[in-house]
This record gives sequence, structure tokens and C-alpha cells, in this order.
Amino acid sequence: MKKRNYFALAFENESLKFLDQTKLPFVEEYILTDDYERIAVAIERLEMRGAPVIGIAAAFALALAMKQNAKKENFQIAYNRLAVTRPTAVNLFWALNQMKHVFETLPDNGNVYERLLLKAKEIQQDDAMMCDKMGEHGLSIFKKKSVVLTHCNTGALAAEGGTAFSVIKKGYEEGLVSSVFADETRPLLQGSRLTAFELSKNKIPFQIITDSTAASLFLKKEIDLVITGSDRITANGDAANKIGTYNLAVLCKFHGIPFYIAAPSSTIDTTLSHYSEIPIELRSSKEITSINGKQITLESYPCYNPSFDVTPAELITGIITEKGLFTFPYHFQ
Amino acid sequence: MKKRNYFALAFENESLKFLDQTKLPFVEEYILTDDYERIAVAIERLEMRGAPVIGIAAAFALALAMKQNAKKENFQIAYNRLAVTRPTAVNLFWALNQMKHVFETLPDNGNVYERLLLKAKEIQQDDAMMCDKMGEHGLSIFKKKSVVLTHCNTGALAAEGGTAFSVIKKGYEEGLVSSVFADETRPLLQGSRLTAFELSKNKIPFQIITDSTAASLFLKKEIDLVITGSDRITANGDAANKIGTYNLAVLCKFHGIPFYIAAPSSTIDTTLSHYSEIPIELRSSKEITSINGKQITLESYPCYNPSFDVTPAELITGIITEKGLFTFPYHFQ
Repeated sequence: MKKRNYFALAFENESLKFLDQTKLPFVEEYILTDDYERIAVAIERLEMRGAPVIGIAAAFALALAMKQNAKKENFQIAYNRLAVTRPTAVNLFWALNQMKHVFETLPDNGNVYERLLLKAKEIQQDDAMMCDKMGEHGLSIFKKKSVVLTHCNTGALAAEGGTAFSVIKKGYEEGLVSSVFADETRPLLQGSRLTAFELSKNKIPFQIITDSTAASLFLKKEIDLVITGSDRITANGDAANKIGTYNLAVLCKFHGIPFYIAAPSSTIDTTLSHYSEIPIELRSSKEITSINGKQITLESYPCYNPSFDVTPAELITGIITEKGLFTFPYHFQ
Repeated sequence: MKKRNYFALAFENESLKFLDQTKLPFVEEYILTDDYERIAVAIERLEMRGAPVIGIAAAFALALAMKQNAKKENFQIAYNRLAVTRPTAVNLFWALNQMKHVFETLPDNGNVYERLLLKAKEIQQDDAMMCDKMGEHGLSIFKKKSVVLTHCNTGALAAEGGTAFSVIKKGYEEGLVSSVFADETRPLLQGSRLTAFELSKNKIPFQIITDSTAASLFLKKEIDLVITGSDRITANGDAANKIGTYNLAVLCKFHGIPFYIAAPSSTIDTTLSHYSEIPIELRSSKEITSINGKQITLESYPCYNPSFDVTPAELITGIITEKGLFTFPYHFQ
């Protein structure tokens, strides 16, 4: 494995070590814990975020819960706690259920913690492999050396190697991406804090823009394609992702620019058939009225702050998973 | 004249009294000055902003320049200084040229300062009258009780009574507007700071949203119409306005929702025939990397920060001036 100069999470010394992403890009502070409750809180506070990373963190948390207390009922308590951290990303529930399956099919003489830990590590390694494959499958979307626009953060801070970011990075390494526009991604600035951090670490040329600037770049024909991640994809290819993603999909359709999504197949929720069935997390007004505790407008002003929006499948040019590049109409195996 | 509980600027005690809008909504602090240079700086710092208010402020500044020093050459010095404060809003140049015409046609025995002051007051009063008329002409855009989305600030902080805000306020008073979504308007938050302040003062129900949230509201059919102001309109009806306006116009077109602009006729620059001729102000990266001096991401990250974008005439359902409601194709008298 290549030496990484930063990472979202790693299992070390029988504990989960994770980067507190709320402090980026100012401070790279890692937190070490073997307490599943601390991990649940980290997911709620967005100290760890990004659909695949949330799933991996929850898997390690379940293993650690059994290290703390191996009683059978403790598994379900920890499972329930982790399941209420965030509602939209399906990878969380996918990972929790993978762990549950292992737990329920354990031989009587098995070491519960060891076995769950093994599964969590497998989920993490699989994610790394899937991110690599997404990068490779994604190369075909670049018809020429391209200027790419992306939204939110989809790099190694969000998945083991990145989803959409993996495609961008691979494209840059292959000389197919010239530069990147990164939406700042209000309210929590995952673009200007996290994607800028990762683009900078990877020495990929970029400029941060405010979210509403993108449209003017389309009018001037300065964007060749858009690629984002996703937190949940329905069986028909509708996709939930960070608020603002649907905006970009509409801009792409209007201007005749391709719009892609990259996500591991664990993001596909085959139990849902339409975007209206995806639960959308509503977060506090305070994310809009303040930044890192500093008021930027009056706290008393009413705000509407959904964390995600949904994009109907017909606006998505292609969806890249570890299995390949799918196009509309979507039929995932 | 009705008593106003706040105002952008007023001429009092032979000085200009203006509200420092950079401190809103936290502090309502008025500054009194008779120094035209201080007014020029206030326009550059956005202590006063909004296309019509900039024009009025510049008119008073020219009068005050002649109070300070009535020498003929001083007029041109002050004119030149004020003309370089901000490039996009044409109302600034319109007002400066109105003042210049008065200056150049003064009788030899006229009191320069008194005469220029009279003209500045006339420009201010005319603006108030035009804002009232825009409110009245705008009523016809409400086909039913409507939820309105607006961008940036267009109220009494931007013009004597407001441009788009005047239409919204009049609509609310007439029972034709139920509530307002206010885009926060990054980077300088004119929506969440100034429009929220004015909606709150006028007791109009509202919610602040991040700029990229609007699209998801269109998908859910929660927006009935959009109305914004403009900083410069070409002879064919292309309009420059705060960055993010073109985004809304595209969203409206895509979702079949009407998109209106309200601006006094002094915003129409008949010397230009296409949006590409409108100069667009580029501002500092620091507006994106910090808020009120607090870093929100690394100052060293590169940013692209145009203050305005342009919307082609064919995306604009109607343009409301004091003369009436114009529709595409635009032929302004």
C-alpha cells in the first residue's frame, strides 16, 4: 500500500484513528478512540463524513462495541445507536447490515470482536479497491483534456481513495484533466475546506468558486464536464447527493454538458424505485447563520437547511461504480 | 413622507448620513460625512451598495466635493475618483453624468454647491418615486398568492424603497405574496444579512436558504416566481446582476417558472447591445476564504470571484421599470 500523507480513518492499536474533518484545512488533528459512542458522535458532528467513510467507520464502531462489551444484546444497542446518526447515505445501513450478517452467522466458539474486526477491515479494503476501479472506469468520460467542476468532497476524506475525486485524480494523472473548479459547498464548505485540501495535496490545479458562480462558467463554456459523488441511488438511477447537486445537473442539461456520478455499488439502494422515497436530512439553521461558532447573520432568522437534494436519473449522463460505467436508462446488476 | 425605521442614506446637516451595511444585521450604525473621498471609500467597501443607492451616493458626493473646494477642476477630480469605485452598475455613471450636465450648464453667477445639491436631492426623490411605481407595475406578475424567491438585496438598502423588493413588499401588502425564500447570496451574504433584515423589519414571512438550495425547491414546485434587481441592462434586455442570478434564470426556464427583473430605467444602458459588453467586477479571493476577517478556509487557496453574472434577455420573462412591465423581445423607449 502506498504511504498516504493523510487519511480519513485507520485501525491502529485496537482503536479507530480518524481525522477530525471539521478542523480542516487549518489543523490536521487525528483522534484515537475505541468507544463506539465516540464514533457515532463523530459521524453526527461530521468529524467523519462522506457516504463510504461513514459506512466503514460504523463497521469498526460495531466491532469495537463488542470489544467493550461482548454481550449479545450490546450488538443491537450499538447497531441502533449508529443507525440514527445520519439518515440519507445508504452506505451506513449497508455496512451495518454486512456486520449484522457476520454477527448472526458466527460459530458459537468464534471470537466476536476478532471476527467483526476482520469484516470491518474487509469493508475498508473493498472500498479502496472499488475506488481504484471507479478511477479506471471513469477515464472514458474524458473525451479530451477537460476542465472539471465538482461539488462537495468525494476524495480520500470521503472514501478510501475517493469516488468522483478518484476519477478526477486518475484523469489528471493521465493528462485528461487540466484543472478543476471546486464549488465551496455551503453551508459546511466541504468544497473550499476539504476538496481544496485534497486538490492541493495532490497538486491538481484548481479554483474555488461560490456555489452560484458555476452557472456563469457554463455560459462562458469554461466547463467540460461535471462529476460528483452520491449518498444514495435508487434502483432506477435517481441519486441523492449534497444539496446543490441537482442544481448542477439542471445546468448541465440546459447547457449540453455531461453530468456524471461516481459511487460504489453499496450506494445503490435497490429497495427504492424513485427519488421521492429517499429520506432527506434536515440540519440546523445554525449551519446557515453561523460558521464555526461565529454568527454571520442573526441566529433568530428562519432558515431552511436540507443537507441533500435528489437528481432524477434522466439528468445523469452516466453513473460510475466499481463495476463499470452505466448510462440512462439505468439497470444495475 | 412616511417615517422610515431605517434608511440607506439621507442628506442631513450639510452632510451625507449613511448606514454602514457591512455591519448589518448586527449593528445599525450610521456614518455622517461631508467628505466625498469617504463616500467613494464607502462605495468600494460596500458600506453602501445596490445600484440605485450607489448612484445617489455618488451624486451627493459630487455636490459635497464642490462644498469642500469649489474650484472648477475639483469637479472633474471628484468625478474621476467616484467613477472608479465600482465598474458594473451603470446607475453610478448615469448619476455622475446627470451631475456633470448640471455642472457644465450652470449660469456664471450660480452657487455651484447649492445647485448640485439640489440635483442630487432630485435624483434621490426621483428614485423613491420610481421604486413606488415599480411596486405598482409589478403587481400584475402575481397570478395568484405566490411564494417568491429572490437573490441578493434589492430593498430600501439598495434603492429608495427598493426595486425587486418593492414589488415583493407591495405584493405582500396586497395579499398576493404569501412568503419569500431569500438566497443567502455568497460571498457577501446580502441575502441572509440585508434582505432578511428588511423582510424582518417589514414583517414579511421568509426563510433563508443557501444559494444552491433553490434548485431543490423548484423540483418540489415550492416556488411560484423569481424576481431580482439588476445592475446594468443592455438595449436588448440582457441583464447583469449579482452572481447567481443567471443560475436562477436557467432554473426558472428549465422548470417553467417566470423570472422577473425590476430596475429603474437608469439601469438600462442603451449604448450596449449584448451582455458580453458589460464589464464584470472581479473581487478579492478573500471574500471567499474569509468572512468578516475570520478565515473559513486557507487564504492561499486560489479562488475565482466575479461579483456579477449576466442573463440573456430570452431567459427573462419580464423587466419592470417605473415606466411599466416590458416583455421579451425588449424595446425600451
